[in-house]
Amino acid sequence: MFVDILIEKIKEKDNPSVVGLDPKIEYVPSFIKEDMYKEHGKNSKGVAQAILLFNKYIIDAVYDIVPAVKPQLAYYEMYGLEGMKAFYETCKYAKEKGLLVIADGKRNDIGSTAQCYSSAYLGKTDIDEGISESVFDADALTVNPYLGVDGIKPFIDDCIKYNKGIFVLVKTSNKSSGQLQDLLTQEGRSIYEVVAEYVESWGASVKGKYGYSSVGAVVGATYPNQAKILRKILKSSYILVPGYGAQGGTARDVVHSFNYDGLGAIVNASRSIMCAYKSEQWKDLYSEEKFYEASRAEAIRMRDDINGALHNTK
Amino acid sequence: MFVDILIEKIKEKDNPSVVGLDPKIEYVPSFIKEDMYKEHGKNSKGVAQAILLFNKYIIDAVYDIVPAVKPQLAYYEMYGLEGMKAFYETCKYAKEKGLLVIADGKRNDIGSTAQCYSSAYLGKTDIDEGISESVFDADALTVNPYLGVDGIKPFIDDCIKYNKGIFVLVKTSNKSSGQLQDLLTQEGRSIYEVVAEYVESWGASVKGKYGYSSVGAVVGATYPNQAKILRKILKSSYILVPGYGAQGGTARDVVHSFNYDGLGAIVNASRSIMCAYKSEQWKDLYSEEKFYEASRAEAIRMRDDINGALHNTK
Repeated sequence: MFVDILIEKIKEKDNPSVVGLDPKIEYVPSFIKEDMYKEHGKNSKGVAQAILLFNKYIIDAVYDIVPAVKPQLAYYEMYGLEGMKAFYETCKYAKEKGLLVIADGKRNDIGSTAQCYSSAYLGKTDIDEGISESVFDADALTVNPYLGVDGIKPFIDDCIKYNKGIFVLVKTSNKSSGQLQDLLTQEGRSIYEVVAEYVESWGASVKGKYGYSSVGAVVGATYPNQAKILRKILKSSYILVPGYGAQGGTARDVVHSFNYDGLGAIVNASRSIMCAYKSEQWKDLYSEEKFYEASRAEAIRMRDDINGALHNTK
Repeated sequence: MFVDILIEKIKEKDNPSVVGLDPKIEYVPSFIKEDMYKEHGKNSKGVAQAILLFNKYIIDAVYDIVPAVKPQLAYYEMYGLEGMKAFYETCKYAKEKGLLVIADGKRNDIGSTAQCYSSAYLGKTDIDEGISESVFDADALTVNPYLGVDGIKPFIDDCIKYNKGIFVLVKTSNKSSGQLQDLLTQEGRSIYEVVAEYVESWGASVKGKYGYSSVGAVVGATYPNQAKILRKILKSSYILVPGYGAQGGTARDVVHSFNYDGLGAIVNASRSIMCAYKSEQWKDLYSEEKFYEASRAEAIRMRDDINGALHNTK
């Protein structure tokens, strides 16, 4: 079951954090860019190959210390077919290194169409009688709840069938998330609370041996007060926490998404790890050529930062 | 401006309907499947090429009578890279035939990431100083509003810059859409009404010469009562209406999404047109080899059905 494997990897590495792979081309050191432009041209193929190589360096630098990576689909789709190829290769490489892959695609549609997305990212696609193919074959996918349960059910069915997971958007990390998510219903509950209750119930059929479900939730680090409320509603859901680091969330903010056993949440950082070599903290210690060592140092600092905050408060 | 071009094409063809291209492989006639399997193998490439050829037949059969097509991204993503190539080629072919292309992807994310999706489907992707590439280059994209305005703004900016459009999910056609969208706020308004008000305000900066905006809304044909309410709130938004035909929406249901001038809405049908050759109505008139003639007959019937209902009630 996905959630059990996730928990075991978190325990094994003593690290409840995820490296986000949202690689803008301006994050990529120039020696990689130049090599790839020379080989493939200064075009979407050259960029996609540069991003893929950049990702591989980062994966090599962190695979023994983090349980999972989270590639953000938009950053690959923007380079079209070449980008999607780089996404596929990134997922494949990360899995070969023993990492779980959480595809951040926030997919959503009516049931029959949601099934297609689920086949693409979690399950398998039927080709013809008796023939099916794994497509992107991630371990988990982020999904958007706006269409209600029949847009979510196909993903849950594949979570059961293929040992996969989903993380449903509940309270997102961006500034305007409250426009819809914070609206109060007539019962005085916010939309994010109502969605959290749905998520908790949707996960009932996918619970693993540690009491958590493979139907998780996304709750931004930038909203610690809401996280406190949501941790109580989402009794058995694992929470994926974006917004740590570059978006402003701190270790003290993210502890609210964890339970007292130190489980229940996994914290993502993207830019702060990918661009560690450009940061005030690491730029004097690591050259651009050793950017991946800066990423590793930052991933270790993040792990210790979160674990420290957890030990102090839980 | 996208909405002006859409209106002009609707007027020119006297047809406010869209052909959805959500091609399941079981829709594709066996002579196409067998040819493509023989040429490319019984694998994702064979299927994707069969779907592409099927789409081209349908486009050839309807391009002179409909203003737009709406390929559903999930049905291409499920075949991975080969599927995305078929999506790209489908969009390209439809545009060459003078059709508008509405990519149905329901994309959504925080602002910086939404910008990547917008570059992929509406705008251009920056490669390097002074170099940018059009990627999938659709004319419009469906988007999901759960993250609020800062996840929508990048798309609107590209609508202005590149003459493109978006359709924001307001009230979707599926059964469980009410779980979230029908919740009542403390002011007694439903979530879909609140979202409709946002959509109306988001479109203020993208209004064309007919008074409509390039920021449209999605309102399912399966909810005619909600459509009546939403038509009033969405004063200047064009409404994309899914759910006609196979999902159960009728011409009488969809008229509520139109204004008295016969404008303001565009109705999508997918399965009923793509699979017309298998339907009770057409299967005795058209053989499988002439499936595209059945699709054309059904597209004409649908046009006349909607226009008839519009003339009777508006």
